[in-house]
Amino acid sequence: MLISKRIEAMQESPIRKLVPLSVAAKKKGKKVYHLNIGQPDIKTPDEFFQAIKEFNPGVLAYVFSEGIPELIDSFIEYYKGYGMSFEKDDILVTNGGSEAILFSLIATCDSGDEVLIPEPFYTNYNGFSSTAGVKVVPITTTAENGFDLPELEVMEALITDRTKAILLSNPGNPTGKVYTMDEINRVKDLALKHDLYIIADEVYREFVYDGLEFVSFGQLKEIEDRVIITDSISKRYSACGARIGCVATKNKTITKEIMKLCQSRLCVATLEQVGAAKLVEVSKDYMKAAFEEYDKRRKTVFNALQEMDGVLCKMPKGAFYITAKLPVDDAETFARWLLTDFDVDGETVMVAPAEGFYATKGMGRDEVRISYVLKEEDLIMAMNVIKEGLKAYNK
Amino acid sequence: MLISKRIEAMQESPIRKLVPLSVAAKKKGKKVYHLNIGQPDIKTPDEFFQAIKEFNPGVLAYVFSEGIPELIDSFIEYYKGYGMSFEKDDILVTNGGSEAILFSLIATCDSGDEVLIPEPFYTNYNGFSSTAGVKVVPITTTAENGFDLPELEVMEALITDRTKAILLSNPGNPTGKVYTMDEINRVKDLALKHDLYIIADEVYREFVYDGLEFVSFGQLKEIEDRVIITDSISKRYSACGARIGCVATKNKTITKEIMKLCQSRLCVATLEQVGAAKLVEVSKDYMKAAFEEYDKRRKTVFNALQEMDGVLCKMPKGAFYITAKLPVDDAETFARWLLTDFDVDGETVMVAPAEGFYATKGMGRDEVRISYVLKEEDLIMAMNVIKEGLKAYNK
Repeated sequence: MLISKRIEAMQESPIRKLVPLSVAAKKKGKKVYHLNIGQPDIKTPDEFFQAIKEFNPGVLAYVFSEGIPELIDSFIEYYKGYGMSFEKDDILVTNGGSEAILFSLIATCDSGDEVLIPEPFYTNYNGFSSTAGVKVVPITTTAENGFDLPELEVMEALITDRTKAILLSNPGNPTGKVYTMDEINRVKDLALKHDLYIIADEVYREFVYDGLEFVSFGQLKEIEDRVIITDSISKRYSACGARIGCVATKNKTITKEIMKLCQSRLCVATLEQVGAAKLVEVSKDYMKAAFEEYDKRRKTVFNALQEMDGVLCKMPKGAFYITAKLPVDDAETFARWLLTDFDVDGETVMVAPAEGFYATKGMGRDEVRISYVLKEEDLIMAMNVIKEGLKAYNK
Repeated sequence: MLISKRIEAMQESPIRKLVPLSVAAKKKGKKVYHLNIGQPDIKTPDEFFQAIKEFNPGVLAYVFSEGIPELIDSFIEYYKGYGMSFEKDDILVTNGGSEAILFSLIATCDSGDEVLIPEPFYTNYNGFSSTAGVKVVPITTTAENGFDLPELEVMEALITDRTKAILLSNPGNPTGKVYTMDEINRVKDLALKHDLYIIADEVYREFVYDGLEFVSFGQLKEIEDRVIITDSISKRYSACGARIGCVATKNKTITKEIMKLCQSRLCVATLEQVGAAKLVEVSKDYMKAAFEEYDKRRKTVFNALQEMDGVLCKMPKGAFYITAKLPVDDAETFARWLLTDFDVDGETVMVAPAEGFYATKGMGRDEVRISYVLKEEDLIMAMNVIKEGLKAYNK
C-alpha cells in the first residue's frame, strides 16, 4: 500500500524524534534533562486551574468555532497592553499557535505557492507547510552575524510570482533574535512592494531582554491589512499543554475565510478555553518573576557555552532558546549518543539537533538548539553534561 | 490583497453558517431549538470531570504527541468490546474525529488525488478535503432508496488513477444509514481490487437501532492493512466540547507517518485527555440509557415528519440524524426564514440545510438534516415549529 508522497517527504520533528531514546534512557534509570523542547518548568497560574474547577457545565458541549467570547475578550484586553486595538471579530481562537500558523498559510497560499521564512526557523513551520502544500523559501541568516535579516535586495531576489507571504517569529525561535525597527521596516517594505502577507508569530513577545523594545507587526498601521498575528498562551503563561492560541488580524476577509477552517473542525477544547480566559487576570508580578528567571537562565547557559572549547554562539536577545555551533560533525549523532551512551553520574541531556530548523540542505548540521526552560541548578548540571560529553565524544 | 483560491472556494459549514441568525433571534428574545448540530443534551459522565478535578500538575506541560498512555490504553480497552485488538502504537490521539480524518487524508492522498465518499456525507468532509487539497468524488445515494450503496460496478466507474481512498461514516451522518454485511463486503472488494484505503468514520457506532448488528471495518482481518478507523468520544459520551478523537489502524506505516503530523502540532489538549481516559469506566447503564433515549427520540421525530404534508424520509437505522425532503424549493432559504421571520409563541428552530452535505451540484437543495439530540418535550415543540413553519411558508 502506497502512502502519500507529501507525508513520506515530511521530516520528523527534530524536537521530538529523539523521544524514544530518552524514554529508553529513563528506563535504564538515567535522569534526562530536557533542553530539547520549549516546555517551561514555571508553574501555570492558579487562575487557570481555578476557573476550570469552578466550571460545571453538565454537558461538555461544542462551543463557538471562533472561541468562547470570554477568551476573545481577554485576548483583546491583552493586546491593548501592546498598543493594539482589536475588535471581537478580529480574533479567532485556535488549537495553539500551531493551528493559527497552519490556517494562516492555507488562507493566504494555494498548493504550490511559496512562503519566505528566515532560517533557522521553528522547525514545525516545515510540518505546517507540508500539510498546506506550501513551499518554504528560506532567507538564510547565520549565528555568526547574530541572525540579522539580510538587506532588502537579498530578500527580493527570492521573490517569485508564487510568493504570497513572509512568515517569521519575533522574538525568534530557535535564534533568540529580536528584530530591530530597521529590520521590521525592511519586512514592511518588502510586503508592500511585492504584495505579501506578513504572518507574525509573536508567541515569545514577553521575553525580550537587555532593555530592548519589542515592536509588533500589529502596531504598524500602514500595513494592518496584510499582517496576521499568530499567538499562543503556551509560553507566556507556561501552559503548553492547554493548546490555546489565536489568529489576530485587522483584515476582515482573512478572519471571515479562516472562520471556515475553524468551523470545519468545530471548536477548540472547551475547558482549556475557560481556564485561558482568566489568564488576563494574572498579576504583573507573575510575569515579572518569570521574565527575571528566564533572563538569569539565559546568562547561565550562554556563559556555560562560552566556556566550552569550540562552541560558537551569540547572546540571544529574546525567547528562551540558544542555537549554538558545536565542535562536532553531526550534531544529531552527538545528541543521540548523549542519550544512548553517555551520562555524568547517571544524568544526561536531550537537545534538539538544529539541522531540521533550516530549509537549506546541509546548514545547521553542527548546531543544536538549547531551550533554557529548566531551573538554574538543573541547567548548571545539564550544561556540565554537554561539556563533559563533548570532551568524551571528541576523544 | 488576494486570498488563496482554495479558501475562497471552501463552503461555509451548513451546520454553523446560520449561527449569526440564531444569535440575532435569541437577542430578539426568541427561543431557538438547535436541531442543526449533533450536540447531545445528555449529561457528560461525572468520571470525566472528576478525573480533571483530581489532576493537579502544577505545570500544564506538553504531553506525548500520540496522546497520553492512559487514554491510548482506554481506547484499546474500548475496542476490545467490539472484537478489535489494537496495540499501543496502533492508536494516535487527535483533536476530535475532525483531525483524525484530516490526518488520514493527508497521509493517503497527495494534493489533487481523489477520495470516494458516499453522498450525502458529513459536510465537514468537504472542509478536510479542501484543507488537504483532495478532490471529493461522490458516490450518490438517495433518501428514496434508504441511502443504500450502489452496486460494485457503479462505484468502480468512479475510480481513476488518482483514487486513493474511500471515506465513509457508518452509521451514517447525515443519513442514519447502517451498512449491511453485504455493503461492507462490497466496499472491501472495491478496496482490494483497486488498492484503496478505507477511512472508516465510526463515531456513531453505539447508536444502531432496531436490533441491527454493527460491523466495523476494523473487524475484517483480510484488509486490516488498508483500514483506518477515525473515532471520537464526542457522541458516545456526550463530550463534544472535549475535542478528543483518535486514529486507529493496524497499518504501522500509516501510524508512523501520521505521527509526524501529530508531532508538528505538538499534542492534544491535556486536561481533556485526562478526563477522556476515565470514560472507559463509565457504566453500561449510562450507555444503555443514552441509547434508549435516542431511540425514543428517533421515533418521535420520524413520526412527526411522517405527519407533515409533502415531507419525505425513511426511518434512520443509526446515529442521531434524519435527512428529510421538505416541500420547499430551497431548504436553506426556508431555514433562514425560520430564524428571521417565524416563531410559534416566541419559539423557533434551527436546522441544517442539506445541500452542503452533497458534492453533486443541485442535490439536496430541498432537504434538511435534523439532529434528534434534544429531550423529548423539546423535540415535540421543535417539530411543531417546523410543521407550522412549512404551512406558513408555503402560503
